[in-house]
Amino acid sequence: MSFKKPFQKAEFEQRVANVKQRMEAAGFDLLICQDPANMGWLTGFDGWSFYTPQAVLVHLEEASPIWFGRAQDAKSAHITTDLPAENIVGFSEPLVHHPVRHPFDELCELVIARGWGSARIGVELDAHYYTARAHQHIVEGLPNATISDNQGLVNWARLVKSEAELVYMREAGRIVTDTMNQALARLKPGVRQFEIIAEVYHAQITGFDNKFGDYTSLCPLIQVGEGTSTPHLTWTDEPLPDRGLIAMELGAARRHYHAPLTRTAHIGKPPAEVSRLTEVIIEGGDIALRAAKPGTTCAEIEAIWQDVLKRNGYSKESRVGYSIGLNYPPDWGERTASLRPGDTTELQAGMCFHFQSGVWLDDFGAAVSEPFVVTESGGERLCDVARELIVVD
Amino acid sequence: MSFKKPFQKAEFEQRVANVKQRMEAAGFDLLICQDPANMGWLTGFDGWSFYTPQAVLVHLEEASPIWFGRAQDAKSAHITTDLPAENIVGFSEPLVHHPVRHPFDELCELVIARGWGSARIGVELDAHYYTARAHQHIVEGLPNATISDNQGLVNWARLVKSEAELVYMREAGRIVTDTMNQALARLKPGVRQFEIIAEVYHAQITGFDNKFGDYTSLCPLIQVGEGTSTPHLTWTDEPLPDRGLIAMELGAARRHYHAPLTRTAHIGKPPAEVSRLTEVIIEGGDIALRAAKPGTTCAEIEAIWQDVLKRNGYSKESRVGYSIGLNYPPDWGERTASLRPGDTTELQAGMCFHFQSGVWLDDFGAAVSEPFVVTESGGERLCDVARELIVVD
Repeated sequence: MSFKKPFQKAEFEQRVANVKQRMEAAGFDLLICQDPANMGWLTGFDGWSFYTPQAVLVHLEEASPIWFGRAQDAKSAHITTDLPAENIVGFSEPLVHHPVRHPFDELCELVIARGWGSARIGVELDAHYYTARAHQHIVEGLPNATISDNQGLVNWARLVKSEAELVYMREAGRIVTDTMNQALARLKPGVRQFEIIAEVYHAQITGFDNKFGDYTSLCPLIQVGEGTSTPHLTWTDEPLPDRGLIAMELGAARRHYHAPLTRTAHIGKPPAEVSRLTEVIIEGGDIALRAAKPGTTCAEIEAIWQDVLKRNGYSKESRVGYSIGLNYPPDWGERTASLRPGDTTELQAGMCFHFQSGVWLDDFGAAVSEPFVVTESGGERLCDVARELIVVD
Repeated sequence: MSFKKPFQKAEFEQRVANVKQRMEAAGFDLLICQDPANMGWLTGFDGWSFYTPQAVLVHLEEASPIWFGRAQDAKSAHITTDLPAENIVGFSEPLVHHPVRHPFDELCELVIARGWGSARIGVELDAHYYTARAHQHIVEGLPNATISDNQGLVNWARLVKSEAELVYMREAGRIVTDTMNQALARLKPGVRQFEIIAEVYHAQITGFDNKFGDYTSLCPLIQVGEGTSTPHLTWTDEPLPDRGLIAMELGAARRHYHAPLTRTAHIGKPPAEVSRLTEVIIEGGDIALRAAKPGTTCAEIEAIWQDVLKRNGYSKESRVGYSIGLNYPPDWGERTASLRPGDTTELQAGMCFHFQSGVWLDDFGAAVSEPFVVTESGGERLCDVARELIVVD
């Protein structure tokens, strides 16, 4: 089967080497990674099997990572990765949703059989699919190991993107640009929300020049009227009003690398308060992006943005951005650096962020966000949709 | 905002009453539910915010559930539920992805402030988004409580669907019927996989008669050629071959109620081994569905199916089905009853299953699945796609 791997083998080797350096510094012999983005980043493994327990193991003294998962998905690992066959291990089918036993019982047996039963093991204590029960089985199954949270060690290793990764980030930006422009062009009174979303999905997957899109880690989001005051509602059958506010947050994923984008539109002449809020958001975002150069901290970017808001009588309590890159549902954020007070992460060239400048007031909200990559000359936008309140006549 | 709630208030009250009975029987005063399907089923809460810690609490002595989540999503709870305003509680924004503190620290404070600090608490130890770290914060924050796994108490309460729920299940069946038929009609040599998937998404969301679809808990899956030997690969830019096997697993979701469906197609005259495997799968499925009446156990259904396979020289190690209904990514299974050896759950009218009759051999696989609802006269199919190996000339 001619599966096109997204990266050269050398890129995966370099990632594993990077992670091993971090493991040594942090005092881990072995990592157990369940986050599908970490599994994919380390090995290339791809497939919608993350609803079942699975993991990639990295051991300091083992050249290649080990894939562990459901037997029926092991074949996906053979197809999508370059891992040696002996490092692809399937667990027994009866362990799926078993009330007493757990697939990770066999993971523990594997760890012990490899001679790593007394290792210093770093687990992903807060990864979405690493459940409390999974952890209990790891702890009970490896009584001689020292098990602790690796605090997103691989997530942090993913923060600065390689040139090869940036190609996908920019392609994702191009797809979401086209997708958002198509969605905006469809905003008219009487069009039902789901009709727009159906087109959005079509555009997200179609991509451009046969550069197709993958499923995105968040579904497309649309809010209308009062619904714009909260960011995560999904579509309904409601027709768009003759006059009113609409916010959309859409992403695109290219080989699972994500570019998310938010725009706010108004059908009919916008109220002054909406225009004003949007102008302030755009001004604040522009100034922040210009400042997003290597050496500036995440907190400093947030402060620059917050100053513009404050000067205009607004504030935003939630963080104004987060790192993005390779990801799987349910979130396209990397759960590492955030643009918010107290985050002292220094920007480096190749880091990517979603500058999520949404401001949600009591009765309405607005957002004009941008995904960007940090460069020597500031934040380079990954998208090219008009930075303005879109007015639908 | 005119959000159309999917059910009457009385239906939610009846669900909560059902859950409270189960809590009394199991010895719980308080449930903490993080599974988005459980949160939605108990309250109607809807929104793509499950990537962040959130929960619905049910206490025996509190009339209504309590929603707890991110402050910016509390408004979604006000819009999508009938919960009293004082039972919608947002946590402080700085707790998002905080390295030391966790949103559930404030959940514990809420539990204590309500006077429930010494309660017998049931948590969802194996729910996808209930991470090991979340559990540690619950345990540390409620030192006087007795905390244990509720073993999917709410998931089990969801097993038998109400008439109102079955309306959505059948509508989902209708949407996936249309979606699969459209996808099958597009199978032609040279068509690229993603082009089919783009149409699938469009059909899933468009639905019929303004009965739109929601995002599905699994993405559409397509496998071609050798890829059919493993079930969870996703689409590529590969053109369909002049001759070869194709498997698709597609779902549709109506107000988040899911009907999943699998079909196998062959471009060109199918090899005898493929036709034969498919015929056996269909025969086994037909016999099993006829037997799916109240009183029969899940294991008995599996045995009936397995007999047909064995008689024909095949076997299937993985379970042949699982309960379905309301769900959110990453899985449309309810993680309760499975059609497999040892599952003594007795079928009842109104239970719904995906009869997932995929058989994956070393070099290829085939599946002709059916979602069905248990009725007095056997399994009633929710879909109406031809039960056959689809041959594309």
